[in-house]
Amino acid sequence: MPERSPLAPERSPVLPAIAGVRLAATNCGIRYKGRTDLLLVEMAPGTTAAGVLTRSSMPSAPVQWCRKALAKGRARAIVVNSGNANAFTGTIGDASVARTVAAASKLFHCGKPEVLAASTGVIGEPLPDEKITAALPPLRAALSADAWAEAAAAIMTTDTFPKAATATARLGGGKVTINGIAKGSGMIAPNMGTMLAFIFTDAKLPATVLRTLLKDANDRSFNSITVDGDTSTSDTAILCATGQAKHKPVGSASSAMLKDFRKALDAVMQDLAQQVVRDGEGAQKLITVDVTGAKSDASARVIALAIANSPLVKTAIAGEDANWGRLVMGVGKSGEPAKPERLSVRIGGVQVARRGQRVQGYDETPVTQHMKGREILLEVDIGLGRGRATVWTCDLTHGYIAINADYRS
Amino acid sequence: MPERSPLAPERSPVLPAIAGVRLAATNCGIRYKGRTDLLLVEMAPGTTAAGVLTRSSMPSAPVQWCRKALAKGRARAIVVNSGNANAFTGTIGDASVARTVAAASKLFHCGKPEVLAASTGVIGEPLPDEKITAALPPLRAALSADAWAEAAAAIMTTDTFPKAATATARLGGGKVTINGIAKGSGMIAPNMGTMLAFIFTDAKLPATVLRTLLKDANDRSFNSITVDGDTSTSDTAILCATGQAKHKPVGSASSAMLKDFRKALDAVMQDLAQQVVRDGEGAQKLITVDVTGAKSDASARVIALAIANSPLVKTAIAGEDANWGRLVMGVGKSGEPAKPERLSVRIGGVQVARRGQRVQGYDETPVTQHMKGREILLEVDIGLGRGRATVWTCDLTHGYIAINADYRS
Repeated sequence: MPERSPLAPERSPVLPAIAGVRLAATNCGIRYKGRTDLLLVEMAPGTTAAGVLTRSSMPSAPVQWCRKALAKGRARAIVVNSGNANAFTGTIGDASVARTVAAASKLFHCGKPEVLAASTGVIGEPLPDEKITAALPPLRAALSADAWAEAAAAIMTTDTFPKAATATARLGGGKVTINGIAKGSGMIAPNMGTMLAFIFTDAKLPATVLRTLLKDANDRSFNSITVDGDTSTSDTAILCATGQAKHKPVGSASSAMLKDFRKALDAVMQDLAQQVVRDGEGAQKLITVDVTGAKSDASARVIALAIANSPLVKTAIAGEDANWGRLVMGVGKSGEPAKPERLSVRIGGVQVARRGQRVQGYDETPVTQHMKGREILLEVDIGLGRGRATVWTCDLTHGYIAINADYRS
Repeated sequence: MPERSPLAPERSPVLPAIAGVRLAATNCGIRYKGRTDLLLVEMAPGTTAAGVLTRSSMPSAPVQWCRKALAKGRARAIVVNSGNANAFTGTIGDASVARTVAAASKLFHCGKPEVLAASTGVIGEPLPDEKITAALPPLRAALSADAWAEAAAAIMTTDTFPKAATATARLGGGKVTINGIAKGSGMIAPNMGTMLAFIFTDAKLPATVLRTLLKDANDRSFNSITVDGDTSTSDTAILCATGQAKHKPVGSASSAMLKDFRKALDAVMQDLAQQVVRDGEGAQKLITVDVTGAKSDASARVIALAIANSPLVKTAIAGEDANWGRLVMGVGKSGEPAKPERLSVRIGGVQVARRGQRVQGYDETPVTQHMKGREILLEVDIGLGRGRATVWTCDLTHGYIAINADYRS
């Protein structure tokens, strides 16, 4: 077990129960010794669900299943294993998912599309699904409303800490809770794939509404982080609403009633996303890249990601070097509209360059001081429009090389 | 001076004289102590020139000058300094180039657009051009037809070896020579920018023909390498033809007469491009990524670059780990058309996966053996079309982190 990241939160939050959600975890022996590797979540009848899945053209077998199943917008059970991604396993992998889904749907007397599946771990090796199906009945007997910490731990691969977040929101005269768990730090350690996130609420929301809410919040959270720019074959974020809370009905994602819920969902998902970055392989510093003044929000995001994915920017920060020329390089390589004579740069709140040149009498001392901290703020103003984006990443250190150059077995 | 790369050629080739080209190098004191940092090249009247310049939206001042000057298609002199990139220096930087160009055009009694300039080194600091203009007259007195090794050394920043290549070609009943020198290894060490390449021939070719020849050869050489995916603000490749050789006139780039010349130009530029990768920061292995069966050549190139720029692929190779799942990940994240059930993977010539699955009875032994070598071959067949591309890169090691996380001064 690797050491806990220096950027980890001091303690994990204790998640409250969510009416209609029960969880259980176990070690079914897929890959890891002495730790859990299988999670079962049961949700009350009537639960709605939405998901965002990897855009990789090489999606894992469970991702392909979820894409189909989520079209129905309902979920009664989620089965997640760590240790094997069931990716690039062809028809063998599809059959594994089919057997797992069939076993769970029988157990919960529900339709197969109401069973969602996710896998994370090694790519290209057949998944021993018989170990999963054998473990499902005892897992069902162990289901509990309080097993959130166990659930967050069971989906870890080489994560150094479990990731959980919670928030409440006022909604249509009632109060609802949102819980989320996640794993991952990019496409993490030796041959392990994946970011997974599962978010639950007791709100009563139609699947069509859930889909929009999840997509919007996802753009501002998991789609705004990067560790190494490598897209996993298994990235999956699923939002389930059990509908057990009492509140006025919500008919549309644009309803004003959802304002507080959206804020709470953003808070939970951004918290989880930042925890993933804080657990980035070898991470010693959390970096926030703020881009303003771009032609559009989409353009700002491409520029922010070009900076956040630059190995030269990330190694400079690892070396606590206020090497701002590399931010200029990052803007330049992004391919987005930008002009040197309009570009301004701030580091740690200190103006470094303004409109195409280093500021007169630039004093590097306060910037160098900022670079020694755990949290680094990079601000770039493009000076062309009103587009803005924030992206979170971590530095690139010897730890990343050590973790990823080690032999995988 | 860092240790010579383990991938460096055993010795640098000795470049022959090219009729109409003379060179000289000196230390004018821009940044480095005890090594040369300024190169002057003089070319005979009538020399034609073409260039390819960085696509960065933050181009250096000399790049902006060359873009204008090369429109005329003529060159009499090239002035190159290392130690300062003269990038993101605003109007101050433009004035530096203007003074340098004016001094050289006076020295050679030529038009200003016949003077090309290039700079490589730190970004954002004003260039002390008075040191350059003061050094030009003595440099002119020292010009020699044989100073190719000195020229290749003077443009180095943190390169660990000078890069030179030469070839001859039959052309229109005559024989011509092509010499090239280059520097760089991506956007290399602490705040140093840039890839620079200068290629010279005694062939007699109109500028319009040169442009096409350079663009085509550049796509197959410098545009097919990557060290860290970071685009420099200063990338410059210039091809000059002195027209001193005797051969039949060439009117068009599509002339069949150019077949051998194109082959020789490819050889020189691919040789130089591979030398840049062999000098990649921290490089221990040269990696060739061959993609076949893509929808188009352009699509194959995007896929090959996605694999070659993946930190997970590069660290796996640094660790001598035959982690082929990461190649599948790279194809998946490229965004190009691909289907798991059509994808095949070979490493070191050994079939690892075929049409979406690991091959039956896969024996990793020969692949692991291949991974221990200095030169790694990765072959991916997309199985959809006839598009193909080859890209060269190096592994990502602790050396890269050490070089780039060090403080820049």
